[in-house]
Amino acid sequence: MDAFFKDVMAAGQFMACDTPWNQAKVGLFGAPFDGTTSFRPGTRFGPSAMRQVSDSMEDYSPYQDKHVQDAFVRDLGDIELPIGDTAMALDLIEDTCRHILQEGKKPAMLGGEHLVTLATVRALAERYPNLHILHFDAHTDLRDAFLGVDLSHATVIKKCWDILGDGRIHSFGIRSGLREEFVFGYDHLDFHPFLIGSGNIGKSNKISSREELITSYQKSIDALARTLKARSIPLYITLDLDVFDPGIMPGTGTLEAGGLSFLEVLDLILRLEGTHLVGFDMNELSPPYDPTGQSTALALKLLREMLLLL
Amino acid sequence: MDAFFKDVMAAGQFMACDTPWNQAKVGLFGAPFDGTTSFRPGTRFGPSAMRQVSDSMEDYSPYQDKHVQDAFVRDLGDIELPIGDTAMALDLIEDTCRHILQEGKKPAMLGGEHLVTLATVRALAERYPNLHILHFDAHTDLRDAFLGVDLSHATVIKKCWDILGDGRIHSFGIRSGLREEFVFGYDHLDFHPFLIGSGNIGKSNKISSREELITSYQKSIDALARTLKARSIPLYITLDLDVFDPGIMPGTGTLEAGGLSFLEVLDLILRLEGTHLVGFDMNELSPPYDPTGQSTALALKLLREMLLLL
Amino acid sequence: MDAFFKDVMAAGQFMACDTPWNQAKVGLFGAPFDGTTSFRPGTRFGPSAMRQVSDSMEDYSPYQDKHVQDAFVRDLGDIELPIGDTAMALDLIEDTCRHILQEGKKPAMLGGEHLVTLATVRALAERYPNLHILHFDAHTDLRDAFLGVDLSHATVIKKCWDILGDGRIHSFGIRSGLREEFVFGYDHLDFHPFLIGSGNIGKSNKISSREELITSYQKSIDALARTLKARSIPLYITLDLDVFDPGIMPGTGTLEAGGLSFLEVLDLILRLEGTHLVGFDMNELSPPYDPTGQSTALALKLLREMLLLL
Amino acid sequence: MDAFFKDVMAAGQFMACDTPWNQAKVGLFGAPFDGTTSFRPGTRFGPSAMRQVSDSMEDYSPYQDKHVQDAFVRDLGDIELPIGDTAMALDLIEDTCRHILQEGKKPAMLGGEHLVTLATVRALAERYPNLHILHFDAHTDLRDAFLGVDLSHATVIKKCWDILGDGRIHSFGIRSGLREEFVFGYDHLDFHPFLIGSGNIGKSNKISSREELITSYQKSIDALARTLKARSIPLYITLDLDVFDPGIMPGTGTLEAGGLSFLEVLDLILRLEGTHLVGFDMNELSPPYDPTGQSTALALKLLREMLLLL
Amino acid sequence: MDAFFKDVMAAGQFMACDTPWNQAKVGLFGAPFDGTTSFRPGTRFGPSAMRQVSDSMEDYSPYQDKHVQDAFVRDLGDIELPIGDTAMALDLIEDTCRHILQEGKKPAMLGGEHLVTLATVRALAERYPNLHILHFDAHTDLRDAFLGVDLSHATVIKKCWDILGDGRIHSFGIRSGLREEFVFGYDHLDFHPFLIGSGNIGKSNKISSREELITSYQKSIDALARTLKARSIPLYITLDLDVFDPGIMPGTGTLEAGGLSFLEVLDLILRLEGTHLVGFDMNELSPPYDPTGQSTALALKLLREMLLLL
Amino acid sequence: MDAFFKDVMAAGQFMACDTPWNQAKVGLFGAPFDGTTSFRPGTRFGPSAMRQVSDSMEDYSPYQDKHVQDAFVRDLGDIELPIGDTAMALDLIEDTCRHILQEGKKPAMLGGEHLVTLATVRALAERYPNLHILHFDAHTDLRDAFLGVDLSHATVIKKCWDILGDGRIHSFGIRSGLREEFVFGYDHLDFHPFLIGSGNIGKSNKISSREELITSYQKSIDALARTLKARSIPLYITLDLDVFDPGIMPGTGTLEAGGLSFLEVLDLILRLEGTHLVGFDMNELSPPYDPTGQSTALALKLLREMLLLL
Repeated sequence: MDAFFKDVMAAGQFMACDTPWNQAKVGLFGAPFDGTTSFRPGTRFGPSAMRQVSDSMEDYSPYQDKHVQDAFVRDLGDIELPIGDTAMALDLIEDTCRHILQEGKKPAMLGGEHLVTLATVRALAERYPNLHILHFDAHTDLRDAFLGVDLSHATVIKKCWDILGDGRIHSFGIRSGLREEFVFGYDHLDFHPFLIGSGNIGKSNKISSREELITSYQKSIDALARTLKARSIPLYITLDLDVFDPGIMPGTGTLEAGGLSFLEVLDLILRLEGTHLVGFDMNELSPPYDPTGQSTALALKLLREMLLLL
Repeated sequence: MDAFFKDVMAAGQFMACDTPWNQAKVGLFGAPFDGTTSFRPGTRFGPSAMRQVSDSMEDYSPYQDKHVQDAFVRDLGDIELPIGDTAMALDLIEDTCRHILQEGKKPAMLGGEHLVTLATVRALAERYPNLHILHFDAHTDLRDAFLGVDLSHATVIKKCWDILGDGRIHSFGIRSGLREEFVFGYDHLDFHPFLIGSGNIGKSNKISSREELITSYQKSIDALARTLKARSIPLYITLDLDVFDPGIMPGTGTLEAGGLSFLEVLDLILRLEGTHLVGFDMNELSPPYDPTGQSTALALKLLREMLLLL
Repeated sequence: MDAFFKDVMAAGQFMACDTPWNQAKVGLFGAPFDGTTSFRPGTRFGPSAMRQVSDSMEDYSPYQDKHVQDAFVRDLGDIELPIGDTAMALDLIEDTCRHILQEGKKPAMLGGEHLVTLATVRALAERYPNLHILHFDAHTDLRDAFLGVDLSHATVIKKCWDILGDGRIHSFGIRSGLREEFVFGYDHLDFHPFLIGSGNIGKSNKISSREELITSYQKSIDALARTLKARSIPLYITLDLDVFDPGIMPGTGTLEAGGLSFLEVLDLILRLEGTHLVGFDMNELSPPYDPTGQSTALALKLLREMLLLL
Repeated sequence: MDAFFKDVMAAGQFMACDTPWNQAKVGLFGAPFDGTTSFRPGTRFGPSAMRQVSDSMEDYSPYQDKHVQDAFVRDLGDIELPIGDTAMALDLIEDTCRHILQEGKKPAMLGGEHLVTLATVRALAERYPNLHILHFDAHTDLRDAFLGVDLSHATVIKKCWDILGDGRIHSFGIRSGLREEFVFGYDHLDFHPFLIGSGNIGKSNKISSREELITSYQKSIDALARTLKARSIPLYITLDLDVFDPGIMPGTGTLEAGGLSFLEVLDLILRLEGTHLVGFDMNELSPPYDPTGQSTALALKLLREMLLLL
Repeated sequence: MDAFFKDVMAAGQFMACDTPWNQAKVGLFGAPFDGTTSFRPGTRFGPSAMRQVSDSMEDYSPYQDKHVQDAFVRDLGDIELPIGDTAMALDLIEDTCRHILQEGKKPAMLGGEHLVTLATVRALAERYPNLHILHFDAHTDLRDAFLGVDLSHATVIKKCWDILGDGRIHSFGIRSGLREEFVFGYDHLDFHPFLIGSGNIGKSNKISSREELITSYQKSIDALARTLKARSIPLYITLDLDVFDPGIMPGTGTLEAGGLSFLEVLDLILRLEGTHLVGFDMNELSPPYDPTGQSTALALKLLREMLLLL
Repeated sequence: MDAFFKDVMAAGQFMACDTPWNQAKVGLFGAPFDGTTSFRPGTRFGPSAMRQVSDSMEDYSPYQDKHVQDAFVRDLGDIELPIGDTAMALDLIEDTCRHILQEGKKPAMLGGEHLVTLATVRALAERYPNLHILHFDAHTDLRDAFLGVDLSHATVIKKCWDILGDGRIHSFGIRSGLREEFVFGYDHLDFHPFLIGSGNIGKSNKISSREELITSYQKSIDALARTLKARSIPLYITLDLDVFDPGIMPGTGTLEAGGLSFLEVLDLILRLEGTHLVGFDMNELSPPYDPTGQSTALALKLLREMLLLL
């Protein structure tokens, strides 16, 4: 296009994510796949909904006193995915992530449903054999199969564990699942459900307030950050947006009351400053269930903060 | 449950579709599958949305002067389908349809996306080798594959043609597709697109009003009905609800302006009275895009009329 | 309020319906009652929704070449009705209508559900013993009782017939009801359902197009207008907005596909020019089911035309 | 139905609430009545909306480490209620509750508006003369009459007090009402409004944080539980969902900012473990005002926890 | 970006509108301005809403038997407009249009409110002194000022007339305005309101059906096309989407019942084939009032047809 | 109107705000202007949306133990504002405010976008040269110009500072803006952003919980109240509703996650009791983005509390 239009036309890209590819440090891309969503579909529209309102978000983060420009991000757009063939879709996402890694950059992926995480974890685990994952979610996602289907949003963390093994996945916010998934979580993951009450099978004592839970979360994340830093362990963050309370994040597939607030999650993530972050994804934003736009706006703001952390 | 509750509680089933199975002539079931939907998903909620408001519909059709009870229908509920494995889902639907046929009854299926039609057509073509299909749709659905995927809502009529061959599929209402699909339609189907203008490749002359189109439709359906009756040919109707104008049927996946009205379609269907109808399906109702309920109400009313025609 | 505010502030009243009461010819009022609505409630919000957007409507009707001001209307506001006591609510509406008549003015009522018509008809029949009613509706409303309840939106026309007797109610647009209601309609009313097909019990021959129906409606209304004028019979119009097609009037309680268009109804009403109109009501606007505002805008425009006809 | 369909079809009933009636311990039923709702109607759709999405809810509660199956619940469906005759509707609900009690089971009712509680309390108070009620609500509901109507959602707790007398109703969460209702509450109920500020007429000192309020609530509930257990007093819980903050429960009739969170209410309810619970109801869910489904999902999750407490 | 992404990523641009600028024949751009909208704002989101769903639209038009690619269009994106300074916004749009004309290409503009047309007409009238305008609209837009403001969506056609003078503007579809605007229209424009009834000030006889209106429209457009072709007059089309019936186009600012259908407008436009079209705009799409997406889909389909006509 | 209607008709005015003007102490008016809104318009509908549901709000505040009637408020209605001419609109608002002040009453204004505050501040600063402003907001609003436009919602606090100077504006809740706006805020205002994290440029130490933030806010407001009381300084409150968390206030133009709760803001405001309040405004309520009504209900409740504080 000629120079005239450069001046007059709006950018049409994610907020300040227009670093030329050869200077970019982060490759941001959408993976608009929701082919295994069992309840309310729609996360395929997540990345485009975020992009459409990204002009309304400031580039500057007053929480971190940084600008998005400082993160040298390139918005690569959305992968064009086949709907109806799960394996083929995951392969395309894995290829994209691998290509970004080969170029020496970090992947930042916007789902789509949570299953897309399996694709990036495959590529990342290949590159970083000692990869750890920080997992924010309302659901365990630890089933072996769901309604007879192996590759499913409800099995994704189990599939990641198949790759990484015990003690490498750190789960926070969980408040829904089968009993056997909770048992598995306590046995094989670094597992921190977000529960009050006495039933909680992995705990010895009763918790009756979210303040207690949050304090324990802060301690656990601080300890994790220390360990990761001490041993230079590469960390990937996968954040299922349903970890937030439905009151602030209604636009997601399966709503679980009793979740975290924005400032609580932001605080936990900021505590990771200085660790070796090798990428992240944010998933399960479902715009058809977000008539007010509040879920999309929250996701966008969190994206800014996470990009600045990379 | 005891007798008390029988008196007091609401029926909780489709309007007057509670004929005991051994007396039933029609097996009505939902096939809530939308795994290959390429644009706006949500048709998985179609059958339950219709069931939820079915109390608001009268059992009596003043158009046909009959009651739904006269059709001896049994609402079997919704098939529990795996999301994420298209082949497995189609097999389950095909088994259900085959079972209904084996019991000597007629299938009436509510989608779900249009691909579910392939499953019933497989079962029906096995039973009725000379099956014909009356196809109402806005889209050709004649692709060979869509985004690299073979089994897709965009390929379903092509897959049916693979089974039935030339001249057995009668298509009405089509107004969108690839150019090669239109060419294929004119060459291999009894093909009646719903188009004005001069470009229409299969027509020799220009049409400029819907009145002309409707009159030609009425003649074609009358001729078809005569042929079918004369030769006792079994007929299956597959009706993609996007054949209607989006003004009256906004709650569907892909909206195509310039469609048919309710009375126009009803009139065409009533002209089939006396033919050998062996089943039907109605698909692509997407409740998330029907905030006013108008699409669900229209589908429900058409379902009543179609059940009474069986 | 002082003069300053008169200049600066918006009118806050129905479009040009601010004639001082002693000069007014028409008393316009809301009857926001939906206590017997069996399916989707919400018509209680009808009058306030119309008032809220009435600034967006022009005072001038290009169809009749008149201004609302020429009708000398006073917007009296909404009656404050008890919810939960149907009889008390109807009494209040009847009193209001009677008071308007006693002042020598004509009532124009905005529902609420259709049952409110019973209240105005009581008051009007007292004043005009030879009252006729022109009834536009999708539903027969001719039940004796509904779910064990006598006073109901589903019985309102039957209750009016109890007062007026045979041949005084002229029904148009009907396309839903019990079979016995249709039989009753043909036997006791001047009954014009809006039906195609062969089943139609009161007709000898099959109708297959809306054009035929509309032409017959125009003839029937013209004949009615002639008779009314010849005998100076007072006429009341009750218009249930569900007579319109749900595609243009989704914001109503019970949606019946296959209805009339705006221009068709407007044309029928304009044919009444010169008859002795003594009042009208328009009912069943349900704003919660009108997310786009199209139903409210249509009702408002029709209100303007009906006020100009009074 | 035959065995084939049993395998293939989805359950179509409330999550795991299919215990045969003779083995059931709890009778769950809907009372879809909203005939006296003064502001935004729609709670009639509450039970069906919950049932429609109940497949998306896990049977397992990680808070209590129990499965819904352990509660032996039978979903009886919805009572078919006359709209427009309040007394008749209440009688039908009372009969249903009485029948459940006579069968030796506990009632669990889903409203509908809050007035339905009067019907169950009548039946329960007959059976348990020393019944106490735990009342969660944003509103006092202590009027004598509302807009001239005696039986109203705004009078329901007053009507319960007429039956039970002083000190038997324990109210939490109240933050709206007439001044005289607050005075009555302090004088005749065990009354715990959810208020900050200095105006609070029943309190001697000013409260400025919700933490203080919550701590005082926990103490009060613990004390109540001790007393109830010590004297084996039968307890009924009536929970108006508007006790929750509108941010997490927008889908209700009258919204009152400044309410409780999900974990706060859950914690209070779990503190009742071991008391003699004889039934409960949950009311005022209004799906038309819940476009995201968050209110329905919260109600469903709370229902699971309350069923497990019975 | 490197070649890998070219293959994998979705286009992210308007359907097939990616012709390199130096080969392009048409410059398509958005003018997202709604600063003078008096009733319901939101047209600023029109172009981005269309772009976001443009992947769901086929490139092929079966009406014209052509592909969008044949029109050599370049989507230039949206102009970044100041909100709050109307004159500055219009200047930017005029500059953009002038630049496109200077490059020897044709402008195709997506509003935004109707006022944006004034900017393109200024640039086009400068280039083509004998410019004619074909104007589709529900409203006259012939005020001198609106609420004291000179530059307004309600004055835009009057401002165009100030530039072009008598007989150069051909208006169709009009059904709302002040009486003096209708008088002005009949006196100074080639004015074809879309009205039934007897009041119609410019007509000698009464029209009672839309069929008559449409037939007269077809004749008028045919005559216009003949004249334009005979004299090689440059024609610009400005189409306010509210010319369509609100039943099919609810997503616009001011809704006027009784409008045109999609096929009617398409037919009229196709009759212009062979005239010297120098550009067009389509405006007043307001996505916040289009919850079903039907308005956006209609606009997109019409855009395809209009691009193919250029 | 005659006495009959006075008895029967609903008030049609803001809850209990019908004090005759000569006895009124407060003039309440709407300023429905959103002409410079850069992202999502719609605040022009704020005042009418609040008025429409105001009947559902109790006159009695249990927080302050007072009735709205005690505040002697007169609802003056909405100013009729030109859309498209910002300066003219601000002048009209300023005139209205000045007129109210001249009559010896206090202004209470409902926006509209935040820019309307500039108009009231102009009139108030003229009257009270030592005016202070308490500013609640999510955004700094301290730009010099926005997209080249001087008078903008994004510049309004800067324009107020131009009038009042350093140290007279007390800002709370801020969590978004340009870096230079934050710097300006710390340098020239009494500036209290609502931020956690270490980046916060004006703070020496890291804050990680909202409890800390709220405690510091309570102390700051208490100190401010003491100073104002000691020196009898006139105070104006301008409250941008986006200061609240989007979870409880989604119906606003630009959503910023991580905001305040209703009880937190109410507590802060109640701490001002006894100061010399000379007026207030509440702005940025955008009903098109409030499908559940929760935002409007919150604003209405806060309005009651603020009126009672005047």
